[in-house]
Amino acid sequence: MKKVIYIIQPLKDENVVAIRETAPEYDIFCEWKEKIPEDRLKDIEIILGGNRGFTDKVLGIENNSLKWIQVHSAGIDYLDLEALRENNILLSNTSGIHARPIAEHVVAVLLSKSRSIRESIYNQINKEWDHRIAYDDLAGKKMLIFGAGRVGAEVAKLANAFDIEVTGINLIGEPIPNFKEVAKMDEMEKFIGDQDIILNILPLTSATEHFFNTDIFQQMKDGVQFISSGRGPTVDTGALIEAIHSRKIGFAFLDVFEEEPLPKSSPLWNIENTLITAHIAGQVPHFKTKVTAIYLENLRSYLKNGAIIRNKINYSNGF
Amino acid sequence: MKKVIYIIQPLKDENVVAIRETAPEYDIFCEWKEKIPEDRLKDIEIILGGNRGFTDKVLGIENNSLKWIQVHSAGIDYLDLEALRENNILLSNTSGIHARPIAEHVVAVLLSKSRSIRESIYNQINKEWDHRIAYDDLAGKKMLIFGAGRVGAEVAKLANAFDIEVTGINLIGEPIPNFKEVAKMDEMEKFIGDQDIILNILPLTSATEHFFNTDIFQQMKDGVQFISSGRGPTVDTGALIEAIHSRKIGFAFLDVFEEEPLPKSSPLWNIENTLITAHIAGQVPHFKTKVTAIYLENLRSYLKNGAIIRNKINYSNGF
Repeated sequence: MKKVIYIIQPLKDENVVAIRETAPEYDIFCEWKEKIPEDRLKDIEIILGGNRGFTDKVLGIENNSLKWIQVHSAGIDYLDLEALRENNILLSNTSGIHARPIAEHVVAVLLSKSRSIRESIYNQINKEWDHRIAYDDLAGKKMLIFGAGRVGAEVAKLANAFDIEVTGINLIGEPIPNFKEVAKMDEMEKFIGDQDIILNILPLTSATEHFFNTDIFQQMKDGVQFISSGRGPTVDTGALIEAIHSRKIGFAFLDVFEEEPLPKSSPLWNIENTLITAHIAGQVPHFKTKVTAIYLENLRSYLKNGAIIRNKINYSNGF
Repeated sequence: MKKVIYIIQPLKDENVVAIRETAPEYDIFCEWKEKIPEDRLKDIEIILGGNRGFTDKVLGIENNSLKWIQVHSAGIDYLDLEALRENNILLSNTSGIHARPIAEHVVAVLLSKSRSIRESIYNQINKEWDHRIAYDDLAGKKMLIFGAGRVGAEVAKLANAFDIEVTGINLIGEPIPNFKEVAKMDEMEKFIGDQDIILNILPLTSATEHFFNTDIFQQMKDGVQFISSGRGPTVDTGALIEAIHSRKIGFAFLDVFEEEPLPKSSPLWNIENTLITAHIAGQVPHFKTKVTAIYLENLRSYLKNGAIIRNKINYSNGF
């Protein structure tokens, strides 16, 4: 019996054709078209797309064939990483294609505030002509990016075009293009109090859960702009609300939340000086075609010598 | 009797002090503090700030002393240019300080649409979590700027950072930094039908009034994004509304209007796919300090040898 490539994340027909042509020796099932028969689950060797429930189910089958999961997302925290590591499953993500959209989102929300687009939209609803609304320069502002990496480098590139000075924080603390400086986590106290804009794009790991808590918000400059576009649980929601209420945070741009969809009962919906977006920062236009390009690149190398050449996850640091 | 510098556009006290120190041989009056006595009007040699009514009044005085008007705006169309020219009045504007703000405004409105910030703001009002709203890349888009000059170059610089390809149209058709190409007005037919974004920053002259009419809208690509941030009367409002209704224009970002404030009765307020801003694109943060820097630069050269070294208006082309 042929081994199976199971595609969970819906793709265009032309994308599936390209995958079939690249791996003719596999049976290929597309979940959104034709659910795989139960008796073929044990033959799944490759999963394209991320879904924890399904992955757990396959791993739970004795004598399963699972070897590689290529998710469609940058984040992988929703999977049972322990189980995958124990079973020596190769894991790869689509980090990279999300970089530019997130960078554009960050500039979009900053400008929506600094150039009063948000107020203008409110005014338009009321047919109100207000020529005297507030506006500010982005030039000369300082931005600190938590979780500086590929996405951060793209944010920094666009921010530089607006003459924003960008510093990065990550585990490694080594230079990254477009950053004035990149420091390690334990050096952040040197920078955090002096920043006009803080961008949270931390991955979610055991070390980053509720990283943004009351203590860290208190270290920030009064009136700081806080952007959260990584993973919701890296922020303690209660501490965030308190920091916005107390004006420690002057404006919050929130794209990710501990609970998604953000429940109607959340006070964040109508708290002042907060822009809510529905986890759209990383939305990639022409997504299916862009992820398929990564799938194919990795599929070719996997078929050749079992190697994943792009975005292979290192289980020891979780990204 | 000393000659007078009359400052119309309100400045900070420290700005006025700097002007007094630069021109100690003049009497200086600030309109917003101490209206000039009627019998001193004839002594006004320099007006800092633009106000047609007042300028006409001074020019109407026999044996007036008026020699130079330094307005606080980039546009000068609101003055009686014929009368100023006939009287050999030097005229200068503050073109330049508006360039970056307008450039940021243009990117701000484009991103507010492409990254669905506008829809997110509407959704937030209704506490609605919509993860599937539309989004698009700015990369690869083509932008045509009518009135390419100093402001256009700044727009093009930021647009380039987003990988937008920018072409310019103006009277001269000579290369400008950051533009892929700059063409003359009479060559625009070669470009206009192929552009995703059209930016109108034309100055208002007799040649540009109602330049954007039904004929020119018809030459644009279906679904084009139209940004108007220069002078309202360069656009025929009726033709604009028709072009939006017919979907020739896919989205309009309108900052200037034939009648300002835009009257409550205007259909533009709640026409679909239109973002209204209240003539804020050129709003300059820290404006008073930035215009004073230009005033002082020109004042020093004027006092030295009667010359205006920055932003002197050429009456023959109106800018």
